[in-house]
Amino acid sequence: MATPELAAARKPITNHLAEVVDSVKDLDDGEVNDIGPHEVKGCGAAICTVDGHLYAAGDADQTFAIQSISKAFTYALALEERGHDWVDERINVEPSGEAFNEISLVGEPGRPANPLVNIGAIAACWCVPEERFPRILDFYERLAGRSLELDEEIYRAEGKSGSRNRALGWLLRWAEVIDEDPDDALDAYTRQCSVQVTAKDLAVMGATLANRGVQPVTGERLMSEEVAERVLSVMATCGMYDDAGEWMIRVGMPAKSGVGGGIVSAAPGQLGLGTFGPRLDKHGNSVRGTLISERLAHDFDLHFARVPKPHHSTVRRVVDLCPQARLVELQGDLAFLGIEAALEAVLEAARDRPAVVVDMTRVRHVVAHAKALLPQVSQRLEETGHRLLVIGEGDQLGDATVCANAEEALARLEP
Amino acid sequence: MATPELAAARKPITNHLAEVVDSVKDLDDGEVNDIGPHEVKGCGAAICTVDGHLYAAGDADQTFAIQSISKAFTYALALEERGHDWVDERINVEPSGEAFNEISLVGEPGRPANPLVNIGAIAACWCVPEERFPRILDFYERLAGRSLELDEEIYRAEGKSGSRNRALGWLLRWAEVIDEDPDDALDAYTRQCSVQVTAKDLAVMGATLANRGVQPVTGERLMSEEVAERVLSVMATCGMYDDAGEWMIRVGMPAKSGVGGGIVSAAPGQLGLGTFGPRLDKHGNSVRGTLISERLAHDFDLHFARVPKPHHSTVRRVVDLCPQARLVELQGDLAFLGIEAALEAVLEAARDRPAVVVDMTRVRHVVAHAKALLPQVSQRLEETGHRLLVIGEGDQLGDATVCANAEEALARLEP
Amino acid sequence: MATPELAAARKPITNHLAEVVDSVKDLDDGEVNDIGPHEVKGCGAAICTVDGHLYAAGDADQTFAIQSISKAFTYALALEERGHDWVDERINVEPSGEAFNEISLVGEPGRPANPLVNIGAIAACWCVPEERFPRILDFYERLAGRSLELDEEIYRAEGKSGSRNRALGWLLRWAEVIDEDPDDALDAYTRQCSVQVTAKDLAVMGATLANRGVQPVTGERLMSEEVAERVLSVMATCGMYDDAGEWMIRVGMPAKSGVGGGIVSAAPGQLGLGTFGPRLDKHGNSVRGTLISERLAHDFDLHFARVPKPHHSTVRRVVDLCPQARLVELQGDLAFLGIEAALEAVLEAARDRPAVVVDMTRVRHVVAHAKALLPQVSQRLEETGHRLLVIGEGDQLGDATVCANAEEALARLEP
Amino acid sequence: MATPELAAARKPITNHLAEVVDSVKDLDDGEVNDIGPHEVKGCGAAICTVDGHLYAAGDADQTFAIQSISKAFTYALALEERGHDWVDERINVEPSGEAFNEISLVGEPGRPANPLVNIGAIAACWCVPEERFPRILDFYERLAGRSLELDEEIYRAEGKSGSRNRALGWLLRWAEVIDEDPDDALDAYTRQCSVQVTAKDLAVMGATLANRGVQPVTGERLMSEEVAERVLSVMATCGMYDDAGEWMIRVGMPAKSGVGGGIVSAAPGQLGLGTFGPRLDKHGNSVRGTLISERLAHDFDLHFARVPKPHHSTVRRVVDLCPQARLVELQGDLAFLGIEAALEAVLEAARDRPAVVVDMTRVRHVVAHAKALLPQVSQRLEETGHRLLVIGEGDQLGDATVCANAEEALARLEP
Repeated sequence: MATPELAAARKPITNHLAEVVDSVKDLDDGEVNDIGPHEVKGCGAAICTVDGHLYAAGDADQTFAIQSISKAFTYALALEERGHDWVDERINVEPSGEAFNEISLVGEPGRPANPLVNIGAIAACWCVPEERFPRILDFYERLAGRSLELDEEIYRAEGKSGSRNRALGWLLRWAEVIDEDPDDALDAYTRQCSVQVTAKDLAVMGATLANRGVQPVTGERLMSEEVAERVLSVMATCGMYDDAGEWMIRVGMPAKSGVGGGIVSAAPGQLGLGTFGPRLDKHGNSVRGTLISERLAHDFDLHFARVPKPHHSTVRRVVDLCPQARLVELQGDLAFLGIEAALEAVLEAARDRPAVVVDMTRVRHVVAHAKALLPQVSQRLEETGHRLLVIGEGDQLGDATVCANAEEALARLEP
Repeated sequence: MATPELAAARKPITNHLAEVVDSVKDLDDGEVNDIGPHEVKGCGAAICTVDGHLYAAGDADQTFAIQSISKAFTYALALEERGHDWVDERINVEPSGEAFNEISLVGEPGRPANPLVNIGAIAACWCVPEERFPRILDFYERLAGRSLELDEEIYRAEGKSGSRNRALGWLLRWAEVIDEDPDDALDAYTRQCSVQVTAKDLAVMGATLANRGVQPVTGERLMSEEVAERVLSVMATCGMYDDAGEWMIRVGMPAKSGVGGGIVSAAPGQLGLGTFGPRLDKHGNSVRGTLISERLAHDFDLHFARVPKPHHSTVRRVVDLCPQARLVELQGDLAFLGIEAALEAVLEAARDRPAVVVDMTRVRHVVAHAKALLPQVSQRLEETGHRLLVIGEGDQLGDATVCANAEEALARLEP
Repeated sequence: MATPELAAARKPITNHLAEVVDSVKDLDDGEVNDIGPHEVKGCGAAICTVDGHLYAAGDADQTFAIQSISKAFTYALALEERGHDWVDERINVEPSGEAFNEISLVGEPGRPANPLVNIGAIAACWCVPEERFPRILDFYERLAGRSLELDEEIYRAEGKSGSRNRALGWLLRWAEVIDEDPDDALDAYTRQCSVQVTAKDLAVMGATLANRGVQPVTGERLMSEEVAERVLSVMATCGMYDDAGEWMIRVGMPAKSGVGGGIVSAAPGQLGLGTFGPRLDKHGNSVRGTLISERLAHDFDLHFARVPKPHHSTVRRVVDLCPQARLVELQGDLAFLGIEAALEAVLEAARDRPAVVVDMTRVRHVVAHAKALLPQVSQRLEETGHRLLVIGEGDQLGDATVCANAEEALARLEP
Repeated sequence: MATPELAAARKPITNHLAEVVDSVKDLDDGEVNDIGPHEVKGCGAAICTVDGHLYAAGDADQTFAIQSISKAFTYALALEERGHDWVDERINVEPSGEAFNEISLVGEPGRPANPLVNIGAIAACWCVPEERFPRILDFYERLAGRSLELDEEIYRAEGKSGSRNRALGWLLRWAEVIDEDPDDALDAYTRQCSVQVTAKDLAVMGATLANRGVQPVTGERLMSEEVAERVLSVMATCGMYDDAGEWMIRVGMPAKSGVGGGIVSAAPGQLGLGTFGPRLDKHGNSVRGTLISERLAHDFDLHFARVPKPHHSTVRRVVDLCPQARLVELQGDLAFLGIEAALEAVLEAARDRPAVVVDMTRVRHVVAHAKALLPQVSQRLEETGHRLLVIGEGDQLGDATVCANAEEALARLEP
């Protein structure tokens, strides 16, 4: 009895995305940056989930220069290559409260305020070992999951910003942030800014950060969890220039914009969002991209202060597995809120049986403390003559004794 | 067969909190602020969950002056009383990249950079309608869930900072941010900074922000969801002065510190954290409080970039409720990731039945878009001669037809 | 044979002044400051020479508020009362390169950049011992040589700038530049800014600085030479706000302007210039006053880099006063350029006479080195059996033996 | 009767200079700048009068790198070559209130604050038409009156400051202050800073400024009077970095220092002073050089606020030249203070004679207004049937009828 009219209803997210893009695509607020030699038009948006599912609307395949968005990803590469101590010595991580063309170094002898202002981005680019640009491009391509190209015209037409970048490069040399002449790093930086991407690419790149460093489409780990978290953290405070506070209120996702018209955002654990619209506001951020991001953050509760709380871990059921052992089936998250209830159930089950088997195959998220807690509980129980067996995956549970399933647990319990 | 040795294991979070506090309580890094007339010693921490459960360790009942932590809550009160447009005209929301004693107004004619630097906090205090301080104190008391007292000695001994605050107050008058002499607002501000709180109080106050404005112990709504989110957003970018970027990397929770030694943090949807330790680092933040916050953020995945992703909404089961209607039981979240699967199940159920009943009583979180989506689907189904009934709570589902339970749904389906 | 037509030619300076004022009096560039409650119109200028001669043109008797011009004179009073060491500890003397409403304190713990920005002027006002304003007014009256009145309306209508000044006063208290609440100093400052003066008054006040501290009309010494020089020096670098460099090029006289429309300038050793014109340029300086000052500086070589060089001291004549003594009559200046020639003449005269009498009554200016040199030469001559007698004034010549005239010298030479 | 003991007394200035240098030459306050590859020691001073007389003491022939002192002279050359309008468009003339390494451009689009901070000096260097350095070196050599050499080691060892200068050069390019890549100007700038000079050279170079652009030893005009005055004016407000105000109080001469240890000062109309001492204070100014300059400024009244006032023009005598004409002999200056008295004498002489002859051969300085006044008086007298003849030099008197001597005047008066 289903009818064709229902077909559209089967794509609610795609439809919604299209509607949001439609609602802003004809806005003519803001100014197109004149940085590029050729005009780029359009408006588009794409979402990539941490499961690797991609949604797109509008001109999501239109290419444009990545520009400053590159800064976040080159910083990630620098952290991967050098470690955060090495990089921290050269680049601070504090918001500067200044526009993107802020020039000064902070402190004595002076480090860039953060890796997302120009001078910090050039420093981050220098941190990447040579051959710099091939390495950077390869990293971007793995992030996007496809081959990317440099826009030669934009690369060659760097113009005024080229002079400024040279000034910044020599300042870095003067302040001994970098220990060689800046030419190669500057060339690599100019190239990286000229790389052509689409809103879809940005969605996938953002999803890699949201997915703790694993590219969700290819499954490749491109950076450590720590690096992904650090990049998201720096984007949260420094990503949107002197509009950082307003963006955090309105959108609430760590993000990075570029004068090419793109913005990448990430909802940690959920998705990456890429938007494109060439007209920029006074802060240098895409007018339409900001509106799309704000709208989607609201509609899908992507704002960091509105994300759903983790589920309490709950006890699904407690049954006798065999005369000696009780089976406690847990589900949900072992996050802060569920730890005590879960533990109570295990201890309760141990009250009148010599063994307890905890089935964690339905538990999704286990926080660090819970991972550390289970072996402790296991040890305590052993000290009182009890045994604790856990059904689940090893990396989820630290060093606790782990079985693949109930049958294996039963076998182990046999004397 | 449970033994006394297991008793301790039953309090894993309390134990862990105590251990963390113990590990830092004897650190003597940092300097005690000389703002107060009497020395305050100790080290403590408390967590309050959005369910209202309170955990504490160390000197969590030691009172100390709330100082700058008050800024976040008075800003919340100002927003509640005046609305954010009115307040935004007077106080900007951008990080200043400067230390807490930053003096300048930004822009022309000039607004404080944000409500968490002194000049912005005085402006926010002024935004509260008279009688200012009684109103502010009442608000703090509702947040903490108990009567609070002002430390008269600290209030009277404002000393150097008193002169500075007067200077800031008159600057606000000059810049026409405030339209009367600043004396009353300054007095209220000095009083609010002198209010005595404990780490437990801060935990509950922070939990109110984490719980979207509802005090989790008393259940009283103290501010709108929008205000709670805005305050958390501003804390995220401006709360930790010129250490904001580093704090976001290490802790990743919106927070606010005070020179009295306290820090309040909030993990949205999960908990509030209050810490206390009088020695301050060069940024004016408690050394021990920062370490405790960092450790707990790590152990319980409270960092914004590490919070568990929402659960996919999943279809628990699909059964025939009666010959005309199928029952679809959903569970989990209707967040971004689960929307499409849930919808597909509903449409599939409508394929060969004239009516579908969706049981949402096991669904925990419904994002805005999903709320808007259900009535649309309902309308579409009606256009094709189907009926959609929903079992659940009304505010969760927007305007869709809602039944309290399956019996009511059956009764409605009868011709 | 002289005719009435020549009468006008007898007042060339007055005529020229009138012509210069006429040439700019109808200019309507610039904006009238809205600081006062009543409009003041007109254009005038006056010059007072170090001999006390006064020239005036246009509305030189029109009263207007002295405003910031007062800063230079209250600084002089503070230096007189406290000494420059005491004042220097509290107020620096460096140009701030900023507009007049510059707020910041420089250094650590912080001093006002100089006494001619508002915060420094309030500090200087505080430096005057109580009763502050009566003392300040008395000083201004002695400078102007007449009774002055405070404009009550301006005093009471301080308005926005009043709030700003209060802010600055409290900042000074906070930085411990002043050690009491700023209210009294602020009131005195507001009063001093409201004192009504005319272009003629400013000319006489400026002439007192040009005349090394002696009011040229009344002959009263109002400050030490050192204080007068220091005030002129600070006016040279800090007097014209962020237009200091351009003013020094175009006018080249130390000066101070006020938003009431007045400007005072001083050509050291020559004259004081007072101008009045209410329309101000973007720097807050009178448009017409600047043009008049520039024109007069050019026409009379008042620019510091164009002032006539001192005259060589020259030997007027050498004659025998008596068989034992030669008389050397000097004239001109004993400045750098003339010292050696004069000394050579004296030594030459001593070649064939046991005594030399130097007549310095026609010498106008004697630099410090020359004052110190004469006693040395005297001593040397005595060691070789010669005597040196000097006809002149004692303070001009240090400790050398001095006679009032040739007769006295002759009497002394007698055995 | 003169004795050898008197010989030393015949060189009072040289002796005094030696004594002053001796009194400071062993001071070890301050730090030697490490900019150069080889250490330079010593202490010296030299004075060159506007008459071209040179006095020297200490290590006045020791060469050292001119460094930043070069900025004043290259600015002079730029003004000569391009005119001040062209240069003003590119370089402002305001003190920056900042240390010498101040980086920022002021205003929008941005100009260097003044030509004496590094970025402004590089811009001024660029303003010199190519071949830049040969032209600059030639100019310096004409100023010093001898061949100068570049210190190759210092030129090549520019080190850290080289990176900084490159940064500044590219900033100028970015801000479109300069319209080509900065490399050539930077190279010229580095070379000009490496030119080796002595204290004597600086004295002569300063004397050229003091002498209104005419090198006093060679007699060559090297810049217009206007350029010399402008350079002195800019030195007065911007020459001594963030010590400008203190220097103006203590020394009161326009000056420029260099990290090579040199300082050049100029007393307009009197002399140039060059000092050398390699140890620098925190402002980057030579410790000993500052003390020497202060001492000499005091001893010879070289402070701008202490310079001797111009002499009144006085009437030397009035006699009958012939039955038809009276002769008025003037002497002194026709500066502001003497104009009216001189004019009165001329008019008085015309009362009972048809002609007046004014002998100005004893008048030294004639201000612009007096030059313009004489022809006017002449015209007035002619209108009443009188004649005015002037004995003197043509350029001193504008268009007035001029005779070389009394005989010529008499001849002209004959019918």
